[in-house]
Amino acid sequence: MKSYRVIGQGLPRIESAEKATGEAKYVADLKLPRMLFGKILRSPHAHARIMNINTDKARKMPGVKVVLTGRETLGIKIGALSGSRDRQLIAVEKVRFIGEAVAAVAAVDEDTAQDALDLIEVEYEALPAVFTVEEALKDSAPRVHENIERNIAFERRWNFGDVEKAFLDSDYVREDRFTTSIVLHGFIEPTGCLAAWEPSGKYTLWLGSQMPFTTRRDLALALGVPEGRVRVIKVVMGGGFGGKTDTMDLYLASALMARQSGRPVKIEYTMKEQFMAGSRRIPLVVDLKTGVKRDGTLVAQESKVMTDGGAYVSAGAVTIYNHGLAHMIPYRLPNFRYEAYRIYTNKPFCGPKRGHGQNQIRFAVESQLDMIAEELGIDPVEIRLKNALQPGDVTVNGLKINTCGLSETIRQAAGRAGWKEKKGKGNGVGVGIGCGGFSSGVRNAALSDAAAMIKLNEDGGVVLFTGAADMGQGCNTILGQIVAEVLGIDLKDVTVIAGDTETCPYTPGAVGSTTTWYAGNAVKLCAEDVRKQIAEVVAARFKANMDEIEFYDHQVFLQSDPEKKMPFVAAVRAAQVSDAKGVIIGRATYYPPGIEWPDPNRSYAGNISGGYSFSTQVAEVEVDKGTGKVLVKKMYLVDDCGFPLNPLSCEGQAQGSASNAQGEMLFEELVMDRGRIVNCSFEGYKMPTAIDSPQFENETVITNEPGGPFGAKEIGEGFILSGFGAIANAIHDATGIWVKDLPITSEKILKALKEKEKGG
Amino acid sequence: MKSYRVIGQGLPRIESAEKATGEAKYVADLKLPRMLFGKILRSPHAHARIMNINTDKARKMPGVKVVLTGRETLGIKIGALSGSRDRQLIAVEKVRFIGEAVAAVAAVDEDTAQDALDLIEVEYEALPAVFTVEEALKDSAPRVHENIERNIAFERRWNFGDVEKAFLDSDYVREDRFTTSIVLHGFIEPTGCLAAWEPSGKYTLWLGSQMPFTTRRDLALALGVPEGRVRVIKVVMGGGFGGKTDTMDLYLASALMARQSGRPVKIEYTMKEQFMAGSRRIPLVVDLKTGVKRDGTLVAQESKVMTDGGAYVSAGAVTIYNHGLAHMIPYRLPNFRYEAYRIYTNKPFCGPKRGHGQNQIRFAVESQLDMIAEELGIDPVEIRLKNALQPGDVTVNGLKINTCGLSETIRQAAGRAGWKEKKGKGNGVGVGIGCGGFSSGVRNAALSDAAAMIKLNEDGGVVLFTGAADMGQGCNTILGQIVAEVLGIDLKDVTVIAGDTETCPYTPGAVGSTTTWYAGNAVKLCAEDVRKQIAEVVAARFKANMDEIEFYDHQVFLQSDPEKKMPFVAAVRAAQVSDAKGVIIGRATYYPPGIEWPDPNRSYAGNISGGYSFSTQVAEVEVDKGTGKVLVKKMYLVDDCGFPLNPLSCEGQAQGSASNAQGEMLFEELVMDRGRIVNCSFEGYKMPTAIDSPQFENETVITNEPGGPFGAKEIGEGFILSGFGAIANAIHDATGIWVKDLPITSEKILKALKEKEKGG
Repeated sequence: MKSYRVIGQGLPRIESAEKATGEAKYVADLKLPRMLFGKILRSPHAHARIMNINTDKARKMPGVKVVLTGRETLGIKIGALSGSRDRQLIAVEKVRFIGEAVAAVAAVDEDTAQDALDLIEVEYEALPAVFTVEEALKDSAPRVHENIERNIAFERRWNFGDVEKAFLDSDYVREDRFTTSIVLHGFIEPTGCLAAWEPSGKYTLWLGSQMPFTTRRDLALALGVPEGRVRVIKVVMGGGFGGKTDTMDLYLASALMARQSGRPVKIEYTMKEQFMAGSRRIPLVVDLKTGVKRDGTLVAQESKVMTDGGAYVSAGAVTIYNHGLAHMIPYRLPNFRYEAYRIYTNKPFCGPKRGHGQNQIRFAVESQLDMIAEELGIDPVEIRLKNALQPGDVTVNGLKINTCGLSETIRQAAGRAGWKEKKGKGNGVGVGIGCGGFSSGVRNAALSDAAAMIKLNEDGGVVLFTGAADMGQGCNTILGQIVAEVLGIDLKDVTVIAGDTETCPYTPGAVGSTTTWYAGNAVKLCAEDVRKQIAEVVAARFKANMDEIEFYDHQVFLQSDPEKKMPFVAAVRAAQVSDAKGVIIGRATYYPPGIEWPDPNRSYAGNISGGYSFSTQVAEVEVDKGTGKVLVKKMYLVDDCGFPLNPLSCEGQAQGSASNAQGEMLFEELVMDRGRIVNCSFEGYKMPTAIDSPQFENETVITNEPGGPFGAKEIGEGFILSGFGAIANAIHDATGIWVKDLPITSEKILKALKEKEKGG
Repeated sequence: MKSYRVIGQGLPRIESAEKATGEAKYVADLKLPRMLFGKILRSPHAHARIMNINTDKARKMPGVKVVLTGRETLGIKIGALSGSRDRQLIAVEKVRFIGEAVAAVAAVDEDTAQDALDLIEVEYEALPAVFTVEEALKDSAPRVHENIERNIAFERRWNFGDVEKAFLDSDYVREDRFTTSIVLHGFIEPTGCLAAWEPSGKYTLWLGSQMPFTTRRDLALALGVPEGRVRVIKVVMGGGFGGKTDTMDLYLASALMARQSGRPVKIEYTMKEQFMAGSRRIPLVVDLKTGVKRDGTLVAQESKVMTDGGAYVSAGAVTIYNHGLAHMIPYRLPNFRYEAYRIYTNKPFCGPKRGHGQNQIRFAVESQLDMIAEELGIDPVEIRLKNALQPGDVTVNGLKINTCGLSETIRQAAGRAGWKEKKGKGNGVGVGIGCGGFSSGVRNAALSDAAAMIKLNEDGGVVLFTGAADMGQGCNTILGQIVAEVLGIDLKDVTVIAGDTETCPYTPGAVGSTTTWYAGNAVKLCAEDVRKQIAEVVAARFKANMDEIEFYDHQVFLQSDPEKKMPFVAAVRAAQVSDAKGVIIGRATYYPPGIEWPDPNRSYAGNISGGYSFSTQVAEVEVDKGTGKVLVKKMYLVDDCGFPLNPLSCEGQAQGSASNAQGEMLFEELVMDRGRIVNCSFEGYKMPTAIDSPQFENETVITNEPGGPFGAKEIGEGFILSGFGAIANAIHDATGIWVKDLPITSEKILKALKEKEKGG
């Protein structure tokens, strides 16, 4: 078998030089002639009726070109899924959280726009608001949305197996409540948008969306025009992590103000606005009951999840599915009952974030699993190995596990960490283990497929068009590697045009860890389509069959007689000037076979993905018992992402995920007081920085998933899941205490230590 | 048969509103942040060696960012055809005409750049120059290119039939010399270019090229980079007429100065520069000998053509072929001998212009045909009908005439003009007739095909990608109509993305009248490819065969049961969300079957095109015998362009061509004195304006060419041919004189009238 030449190599990102030299153009760097600057006026009320908006003074201010209110919009509600359209991008009659957009200004410079906001007079009628799930569920509670009873946005009940009986059959059952915090994505580039309008009626928006095609769909809806009149061009992004999937107020505001002024309009969130108006990770209360056999075998689990989603649902239908899904992997669980609620409150809305609703559950399950293991005297590694999903398993909710390297990741992580030596030493030093599993892309509601196109230049150059959205995760590099591998050329020979809704074919976007699987498979098929067209011509020339033609090392040759060969570029030229063939265009559309929609009539069962990734992390911590400060010294990161297409990139994803888990476990919490953010800046909202970074040791278990492109599965999102348990459990190993409320701050540790002292 | 809904309609151009409101963005309208302005220093010598260039002073001038000379280029020679690469875009060692680029400056504004040119010190060694064909052919003549003997760029000899014998067999033989002038394209938008460079090594150029892919190829060559590193974006153009096919000095200068400065650079020719450095129509000396039978039947023709091509050949290999070709249509000619030379002189180079080398020949042939008719007492209409090519004819050089409405165009034109009543009145009032025929696109040397792509938006919107270059002739509208017709939707439902080498697939460009035939057929095939993909899904739904599905009136329905239908947009949605199908991308590549390269071993015989268009014009003139002034009162324009896809657009092409012929026949001549232009502005160079316009009456003979898209043939270029004879012959009818030297100015008419008086 010939070996891979391009995939499997840890090649640097194709945009590295551009970023390192500061030449990469983010939204903030974009300028157009006659460009105006926009600012958005935000509600000071958590819940209020907009009685009147007087914009006269603002309009008259010198330098102000447009003042826009919700009344000049169509007032159309948008949402991530067609059943979830509850959000006007600019409020028309009501505001539902502090920070919601009510008006916008475009002016000749940023200061003028900012000053003009003060001249807009909004008359509100304050309405009673709800800030907690408990308040929101009361019969007498004010409704966030008039038509939604008891403020329940979504309610889900699943039932698999016979949970009652299974608990009775269990040797040991325990119940715990876990709670998690509101967490931000923490990208360093706030959301921004530059919009231009042409008299033909065409809008062009340069912005940093993880889902350019969904952004286009939403904007076309909100603007009341066909999708063909909206071009969304995804530019270089400074991170996304799920926080750049929702369609935001500033997109509509800049587009409409560009139309009204006939000039380009740019709006950029300040970081404060990003905190106030952007989406965030949903906080959970999880009541978790688990029953096991004496040997640690999981028998049953019951999970009651209450979630505070804020004023709008975003992708909440997926989020609430994901809370349940997170119980189904990575362990075998024959009986499961799930009850979950997403509640509307008068707070900023929650959306997807890396791990999307699953990592919070993993924190609960992995912590409780260690509690159980301790009670039963089983080693945490052993209890995980005992319950780990295995290749060929089908979960009770129908997930079909093809490849699964979980057990091996557990063994590798434990082995590398020196688990046996380090475990159970106590005295402020500890190790902890956590596991996770994740779907490699899920079916997208808008359109089920990813597509790709390749255009060959007349000189043999290869141009890939993909709708995929690189937000910093490096997918342009991965997709370019796939093309290069298939055509036997180098990564540098491939030009990648991505994320432009006009020139690129549909791809779901960087969401639900779909890119490598969906876009990757589409790109692979597309490159194979190109290869076939070239091979036909070369085969005819060599009087051979098409399937005997190989592409390798910039050469196209006959397998049986490698002396018969021609350079790739010459082969392309030959194909393109041949009358029979002509200009070569590759196309492909991909949808994984055997994928099902979660079936509402069967507790949302269904095999939602073509492959599932797995990971294990072991954290090594030191806890200062005097201050409660946790130092994460080292993390052992072992992934099963099928076949790593770019090990360097996979390492980065694993380390970034681990760091992300560290932050959410130990520091991160957006503190709110009656709908108002208390710590509305990175001074008050703590995230781990390079200085806090543990040492990382990466390892990969290669499983070669048959349906993945070249055997790959996802890694960018799922890897975070295993970090949550690892850190919680390491703290327990170091201190003997459990903190079941995130983040596990020094204060909580000190308090728990004190209680333990009292108790002990 | 269902009737067409979109093609065949005289729909206004899709860009009409944009142009009418002044919102269309020509190169002159484009701005980029930090953009510099460039200017080009031009040679004052017709022939000189560049001994030294001192740029120190210019570089030191405040505001100057780059000074570029030929020595900072790679010095690579480019040319329209691979065998014709004789031109450096910026001269390195020698200049060969007055106006050739020797250096360029980029500065913060246009004035600074202009002033800096004066500070560049170029030391020339003047060389002896040649300015006429006679001088150039002398044995002792200086060579324009060192390696070219006797300054003969091309030399062609064709021989068909037995010409000697045929002349002997003729009842009447006559010989005349005709001469034509140097003529400009006269577009009102001078050539311009905005270039940007990215640190990744990528050049982007916004410019108005009729051949964006050829421009890209030439620039990639000149810059020494792969084509993938050069993106040429054709912007809205203010005319081309063949004068925007050549790759110009300012493209390379702006690209290189953008790279050197790291800032965008724009250069626009002044109109004076356009006159000096742009291409122009080649002047001919034609010695024409024709033999006929007594009844007017053409028996033999001999044509000796001497041409003064200037310092470089541009597309001269095609030009010299076309001089010969123009004898082969539109009349039957069994014996033909051709001898032609393209000579290098130290003047600006000649390139393609509408009619490309054929209209000059038509002037000669059509004038001489009327002389012969007069001698033989045959009516000019009759002699043309007698000799007109007929469907099924194959010319002696192998052109296969499928459809041919020539005879009918002659009859229609004569009939409408009231030929019989108006002909032969003399006394300053006259009518004249001229005919012509033209190939509908010829094989392109770079790549034989045109390609097209169609991308469907998620909401069913249709986006066409074509490499075709709309220079004002309206091809974006025509191509959009083709897509709309095939898919049963409206023109406004189709977004046309065109002429961008990065996002659009290869198409030869607006040259050789290829667009409607090549791009049109590719686009039609591509739309059919899309239709098939949708029909598959709809057929499955209706449990019918795919070929029973029709697309009409925004509906997709079952032919046999039109009640079974769904809206087009719904059908697209259905197709795109179906697992079996997915994202719909159409692609097609087109090359006309049965097309041959002209064979150098058979006097360049070969059927070069899939179809041939024909036309007849009748001009009605009044000549003031006191002043010699010619008033063209009315022109009857009858075309056979197969099936007119957009009659409004075809009318425009016919009228524009007639006006163009009027100018070249009566006014236009670039006067040169030892390599220097005497009338270097539109004050001195006269072109017809609206005030000079005759009344036009259009008629169309529909022939439905089988290989053309929906039966169409070309019209944009070929129609000019019939105007030349019509005007010359009308002047003769009005005055009795012949002027065989273009343009037929008042002075020449007065002189001829005087001579006639003396002679008579």
